Amino acid sequence: MISQHPSDLNDVLKAKKDAFQIPDGVIYLDGNSLGVLPKNVPARLQQVVTEEWGSSLIRAWNTHSWIDLPGRTGDRIAKLIGAPDGSVVACDSTSVNVFKVLSAALSLCPDRKVILSDSGNFPTDLYVASGLKELLDKGHELKVVAPEEVKAAITSDVAVLMLTQVDYRTGRVHNMEDLTRTAHEAGALTIWDLAHSAGAIPVDLTGAKADFAVGCGYKYLNGGPGAPAFLYVAPPHQDKVMPPLTGWMGHEAPFAFDLDYRPVTGISRMTVGTPPILSLSSLFAALDAFEDVDMNDIRKKSISLSELFISEVEAKCPQLTLASPRDPQKRGSQVSFCFEEGYAVMQALIARGVIGDFRAPDVMRFGFTPLYLSHQDIVDAVSILADILETASWDCPEFKTRAKVT
Amino acid sequence: MISQHPSDLNDVLKAKKDAFQIPDGVIYLDGNSLGVLPKNVPARLQQVVTEEWGSSLIRAWNTHSWIDLPGRTGDRIAKLIGAPDGSVVACDSTSVNVFKVLSAALSLCPDRKVILSDSGNFPTDLYVASGLKELLDKGHELKVVAPEEVKAAITSDVAVLMLTQVDYRTGRVHNMEDLTRTAHEAGALTIWDLAHSAGAIPVDLTGAKADFAVGCGYKYLNGGPGAPAFLYVAPPHQDKVMPPLTGWMGHEAPFAFDLDYRPVTGISRMTVGTPPILSLSSLFAALDAFEDVDMNDIRKKSISLSELFISEVEAKCPQLTLASPRDPQKRGSQVSFCFEEGYAVMQALIARGVIGDFRAPDVMRFGFTPLYLSHQDIVDAVSILADILETASWDCPEFKTRAKVT
Repeated sequence: MISQHPSDLNDVLKAKKDAFQIPDGVIYLDGNSLGVLPKNVPARLQQVVTEEWGSSLIRAWNTHSWIDLPGRTGDRIAKLIGAPDGSVVACDSTSVNVFKVLSAALSLCPDRKVILSDSGNFPTDLYVASGLKELLDKGHELKVVAPEEVKAAITSDVAVLMLTQVDYRTGRVHNMEDLTRTAHEAGALTIWDLAHSAGAIPVDLTGAKADFAVGCGYKYLNGGPGAPAFLYVAPPHQDKVMPPLTGWMGHEAPFAFDLDYRPVTGISRMTVGTPPILSLSSLFAALDAFEDVDMNDIRKKSISLSELFISEVEAKCPQLTLASPRDPQKRGSQVSFCFEEGYAVMQALIARGVIGDFRAPDVMRFGFTPLYLSHQDIVDAVSILADILETASWDCPEFKTRAKVT
Repeated sequence: MISQHPSDLNDVLKAKKDAFQIPDGVIYLDGNSLGVLPKNVPARLQQVVTEEWGSSLIRAWNTHSWIDLPGRTGDRIAKLIGAPDGSVVACDSTSVNVFKVLSAALSLCPDRKVILSDSGNFPTDLYVASGLKELLDKGHELKVVAPEEVKAAITSDVAVLMLTQVDYRTGRVHNMEDLTRTAHEAGALTIWDLAHSAGAIPVDLTGAKADFAVGCGYKYLNGGPGAPAFLYVAPPHQDKVMPPLTGWMGHEAPFAFDLDYRPVTGISRMTVGTPPILSLSSLFAALDAFEDVDMNDIRKKSISLSELFISEVEAKCPQLTLASPRDPQKRGSQVSFCFEEGYAVMQALIARGVIGDFRAPDVMRFGFTPLYLSHQDIVDAVSILADILETASWDCPEFKTRAKVT
């Protein structure tokens, strides 16, 4: 008999699970790294490939509106992050988009030299900032403080406050509204990386008065491996910023083939080259799953799942130490536990069908995706984890070798 | 009875047409803009989506070697452009890649300030150069001369000679070896855009001693709409250049999540963010078509097709004026004709199933893709063109309105 956790009985998102392909025997707690396959994607992709590309060929740029796909996809994402139509575009990778918005933001504050970030930022954001600083060679400083020290570090020399809202390791959430207000009071602009926020927690970019944002298409948005990322520019800034990557897709008249660059008005000036239509079509189709969903319902279930997970782990696996904030309001849609042998335990878990991931040195990370996880999944996953720990079945060479990607 | 042109009888590439999906009633002379769908791509993509993403989920980065896909795809492209393994990577868009290699090249010549290009370069390359120049703000000059004046303009103040080998409008081919030698003698580096070269004509980057190159995945390589582009860095430069877009994929240890960027050795340091696996898998699969093909055979047939096209058009459509070099050695795999009413005629041609394209102000552009075109296709296409011109069937309002993308 298949068990059902009582909290699943009143789950308003229960039916959503049918929209996703979950492999048999798998409890997937890694949707924060790569979302599962939405069932509508394979057929939609097949249509794009065989009908649009295969039959319409070059004409599909018009007849199937490929040319507008970055903006149309952006508008769908905008609804999930509290942004108006025409303020978000899906394009390039998150790293490339960080480069674009950071360069744009710095150009608006030419007299200030500090880029303030924290050690909880996703490393690639810091790499990009560091690379841009070297490239500009104008005396910028990349100041990286501890997450809890950010607010106090927003001084009058800060040009841009650049943070990832949800820490990729611990799930700790920054208060976007409060930090943005503090930054603005100090005369600084803000860039928010929503990689672990979009589709995971309610985000209100407009309400928070955020200046710029970027985010990822392949985590909670389920767009597929390496799906295009997105970027947001607050409407008042859009026509003031000169994009640093001045490609033809951001030109006022891309098909006039003028020799001089003139940026188009609006968010599209932040696009660069020809968009990868197949990957972008997958992301667009994946967003169907969010059409009739309230992000507040997602948040409510996410907290219910993560609270259950923490209480189950703490009851059954006392060897593990919670690495995430205990207050659910202060975490995103993931929970991490530290354990010295976390790597091997995670390998053993994956071998038993419970897929989470591991981040050095000792963090076991579990993501909660309310669209396709049930409370019963949580109970079952922890039961397997407890069994692995109890029988020490992770303590063998098979699970101790580091894989290239974990 | 279906006619067969005598030149098709001995065509060594004849069987290749079966590898592509050509819509019924279409003669496709726009493979220089978007290549047709290779028949193996839909099944391969379905496999990537449903098996790799759908079933292996996050594990597919290792188990299906997604992590190596940019390099593996690059190695396949390398074989077509005379580059060694490990010198080409498939990633990002051509525009973004131009930014990367131009920035890298300029960093190797800090004392020179001139970026030399020509008016035959694809405009986005010039836009990117102009944007980078503004961003660097170090007194660089973007000098754009006529194509025939390039050689004389390679003076001792030139840092980088940046050219598209095959002119996107006329098909005029630059002599890569000669211009690269001249540039090197003047102490300059070279960047070659192979957008209309890769898969179209034999290219020998190693033999020409080219320093950097970029190119497009969706034209002659048939990778699909917006397929990732590629870039080449000559092996001696690879570990000397600091990439300007310093993303985690170019890090020495991307999964160590260090806070500091350390570029990996080799070509991979030019990668930035997570690659779009679906679009990249399509490109990888599309390259199967080139596996058993000699680029010299492609070139031979390309010249045979374009020579036939020119002689047919000049015999049957005297209203049109050849805009491409008459010497086949000086053209790539396309031919353009000027005609005042070219836009309307092209619309009429497309309506009759002959798909070429139009570039302002009056250029009708026809691409020749030897893998899936026959000599009979050429004769049939010109016969339709002649009929349109003779009956003036393009001279109606239906064909006179400019579409957004042509």
